[in-house]
Amino acid sequence: MNKLTYLSYHTQGHPLFVQYCLLSTSSSSLVQGFFRGQKGVLQRHLVLDIMEFRTMILSHFLVISLALNAGLLYRDYCNGRHKAQDVFSFNNDCKNSSLVTKRDAHVAKSKRAFLETKTQSSSPSPNSLGDIIDLDHGDPTMYERYWQQMGDKTTVVIPGWKFISYFSDVRSLCWFLEPEFANAVIRLHKLVGNAVTEDRYIVVGTGSTQLFQAVLYAVSQPNASEPISVVSAAPFYSSYPLITEFLKSGLYKWAGDAHKFNKDKPYIELVTSPNNPDGLSREAVVKQDQGILIHDLAYYWPQYTSISSSPADHDIMLFTVSKSTGHAGSRLGWALVKDQEIAKKMTEFIVLSTIGVSKESQLRAAKILQVLSDSHEHRGSVKEVEAFFDHSYNLMARRWKQLRDAVKRSKLFSLPEFPHSKCAFSGRTFASQPAFAWLKCEGETEDCESFLRNHKILTRSGKHFGESPKYVRISVLPRDEVFDQFTQRLSSITSS
Amino acid sequence: MNKLTYLSYHTQGHPLFVQYCLLSTSSSSLVQGFFRGQKGVLQRHLVLDIMEFRTMILSHFLVISLALNAGLLYRDYCNGRHKAQDVFSFNNDCKNSSLVTKRDAHVAKSKRAFLETKTQSSSPSPNSLGDIIDLDHGDPTMYERYWQQMGDKTTVVIPGWKFISYFSDVRSLCWFLEPEFANAVIRLHKLVGNAVTEDRYIVVGTGSTQLFQAVLYAVSQPNASEPISVVSAAPFYSSYPLITEFLKSGLYKWAGDAHKFNKDKPYIELVTSPNNPDGLSREAVVKQDQGILIHDLAYYWPQYTSISSSPADHDIMLFTVSKSTGHAGSRLGWALVKDQEIAKKMTEFIVLSTIGVSKESQLRAAKILQVLSDSHEHRGSVKEVEAFFDHSYNLMARRWKQLRDAVKRSKLFSLPEFPHSKCAFSGRTFASQPAFAWLKCEGETEDCESFLRNHKILTRSGKHFGESPKYVRISVLPRDEVFDQFTQRLSSITSS
Repeated sequence: MNKLTYLSYHTQGHPLFVQYCLLSTSSSSLVQGFFRGQKGVLQRHLVLDIMEFRTMILSHFLVISLALNAGLLYRDYCNGRHKAQDVFSFNNDCKNSSLVTKRDAHVAKSKRAFLETKTQSSSPSPNSLGDIIDLDHGDPTMYERYWQQMGDKTTVVIPGWKFISYFSDVRSLCWFLEPEFANAVIRLHKLVGNAVTEDRYIVVGTGSTQLFQAVLYAVSQPNASEPISVVSAAPFYSSYPLITEFLKSGLYKWAGDAHKFNKDKPYIELVTSPNNPDGLSREAVVKQDQGILIHDLAYYWPQYTSISSSPADHDIMLFTVSKSTGHAGSRLGWALVKDQEIAKKMTEFIVLSTIGVSKESQLRAAKILQVLSDSHEHRGSVKEVEAFFDHSYNLMARRWKQLRDAVKRSKLFSLPEFPHSKCAFSGRTFASQPAFAWLKCEGETEDCESFLRNHKILTRSGKHFGESPKYVRISVLPRDEVFDQFTQRLSSITSS
Repeated sequence: MNKLTYLSYHTQGHPLFVQYCLLSTSSSSLVQGFFRGQKGVLQRHLVLDIMEFRTMILSHFLVISLALNAGLLYRDYCNGRHKAQDVFSFNNDCKNSSLVTKRDAHVAKSKRAFLETKTQSSSPSPNSLGDIIDLDHGDPTMYERYWQQMGDKTTVVIPGWKFISYFSDVRSLCWFLEPEFANAVIRLHKLVGNAVTEDRYIVVGTGSTQLFQAVLYAVSQPNASEPISVVSAAPFYSSYPLITEFLKSGLYKWAGDAHKFNKDKPYIELVTSPNNPDGLSREAVVKQDQGILIHDLAYYWPQYTSISSSPADHDIMLFTVSKSTGHAGSRLGWALVKDQEIAKKMTEFIVLSTIGVSKESQLRAAKILQVLSDSHEHRGSVKEVEAFFDHSYNLMARRWKQLRDAVKRSKLFSLPEFPHSKCAFSGRTFASQPAFAWLKCEGETEDCESFLRNHKILTRSGKHFGESPKYVRISVLPRDEVFDQFTQRLSSITSS
């Protein structure tokens, strides 16, 4: 079924590797990728399969670099080990290389900027030097190793007759919330001290992505004269505008950077703390009377940042297992909500959207969170078990040291500096070591994403976060071998 | 934390049981219910806990009936064994009994009509005669027994380090679709012969509810001058209008009964076959050039209806495990899609909505579907195993016989008659035995739902399906003891 189309541009007898494309007519082998021109966002479908670069020598790279800089409209970064970079670009096809329309460009940009994932080949062997390193997404595969080390402690066993019903606990406001999961969430927050759970409603969602939409629905007024404005201080998470806009809802609309919001009207402000992409701790910036605040605390865990001595006590707080334990594939998040009516309307949204949330995911997450809490509460009693947040804190500390060393060696980049503060959970005093690095290209390089792409490092441009393209966001959560390869390559880039 | 408020109206020394309400200030014991007046939909919050009717004798029922008919604005059907009937009514509170606003009424009606679930107490003991029988929702707990009999064949075991990544198969168009689940779906369709899978894209969703929305997004034109009309022939599934309207999307809008659609404009027609609520086989009714058809085939399985000799071969077909195997708690559905661009945009919707679908649910469903197929392909080789569709066909046949007998004895009701046809899967010739009964109150009873509610049988009025209130929809999928109690009670109703 597959049809291999190998488009190579030869210059002086050397393949330019401008475009490799395995076209496929079967769904099982169809993957898309992105192409971009020097300026603007140009995209094409890519359909990839395993293909090896044959003679990857320096002269080729120079030819490639020159040719690309000469103004080719798009480039193809597909190869067999990185099949799915930007798999969420759906509207373009390798066969159709005409210029995209404005709308297509917008949609494609949306896809490009959306997914917080990182592509990995199914066999996680170290990528060779010639390979592309995809750190565009935030797939938290870094955590695999810890959970492997834990053996069968977190293994769940689910008999076929369980979870037939839609209902988990009919006495609960959020009746599709498994009590076991709710209990594990409360226990974890009490252990870490990062959020108040007393007198809060827990609403479970299919990831915090769904919960964010549930809040928008819950707090907007269906009879308002116009949609309520949704803002967040730049740089903001690149998915917020896309999720807010994709259904053209009459209830809410994206209104951009919170710093620029000056209407005397109701609004919703997203406060992401620590922030995605830049890792900084945040507070609301608009501070008007008619504001509703959503606190996205996905990264407020002690491997990334110091936990304050007072647990977070906001009206609406969102969390996700993807960034706390690393189980992104479970699609599971939770909200802690003070107001009963908002919690009810969020539950209503999730019923209308998906009639609840996978019971299997909740059961498994409950077990994993319990084992996580156990690993701290029983610390020392079982020698071979390392407490989860100790392990992940140390791993993040090593990675940030490694990253800062590479940046120092290269001299072309800079990273944010974070203040030191004492973590009420661990007792350690440290500077934040976020899940993403907000890297800046210093000097004359204006388009940092393109610059790094020329070095086969895929990142996400600052422009998707409402910021300058001199910045890129880079995932710090891939598997070890990919992170090592990345820092090695970054440190070797010494001239633009 | 709980505060028990027992509101009882005493007449001649007997409690009227007009309103039992356990008010609670903790989320764990908070449940809502519905109240309705004689006309219209009036709703109030109910917060319930276990409470027993003490002296349930005929004179009480007469007093209750008279009092209710005298014009009480709402009634409370809460008791300890039926805590969550209409748990999806969020906006009303037992403490606040003022008349609901028009919008509240609409929202409440939405909730009322929405969820295809049936409430069960956690201990599935037979309900006593005085208890309410809730057959409003379609919670498929009937299937529990079969899967219990299958023992550990369908048990899944998931280690803690699996499914960390967002990605399932980066080569697939729908990259969050687990290949094991896709293979199990294809195998099942080939076994049953109910749908073509060749040259189709499989898109997995968080239930067919999410997939329905994904199709709306995929086929609507973002730059169209007005939202595209969504229609379905009445009686239509009561959730379709709610799901289409709840976000006030600018992409699509609900346009009601397909029989009444006469605009010469693009439209989307939902064809549910067999139909929910009436069980009839259906074809598209609008048949204009600019129509896009969505075939909801949730009930097109051989326990409910005869499978045609030609597999269904429509452009967009939706299925769900909830109604095929009964695993509603897994929130898992799939679409078979002919057009690549539509499949891509559906995938895009699911990425924007929930960044994929629970891996745990997919893994478990894969196992269950495989065991289901095994039970047919290995039939006879393992004596104690009954093939799934044989078991469920026989169970549905018994239930429909029992239901028709009860209707015959009562003489107050009627049921649809279905033509006999030969099932290409089983070789049996039989009349459809749907998952819902579309019951009509004969004679002068205009509001069948209220009439049955007076007999403590909760059903869903025909008006929510775009039809006359002389009809109600009744779930045929509860646990055995509930169904037995229902038919027993129905047959004893001999005068209005």
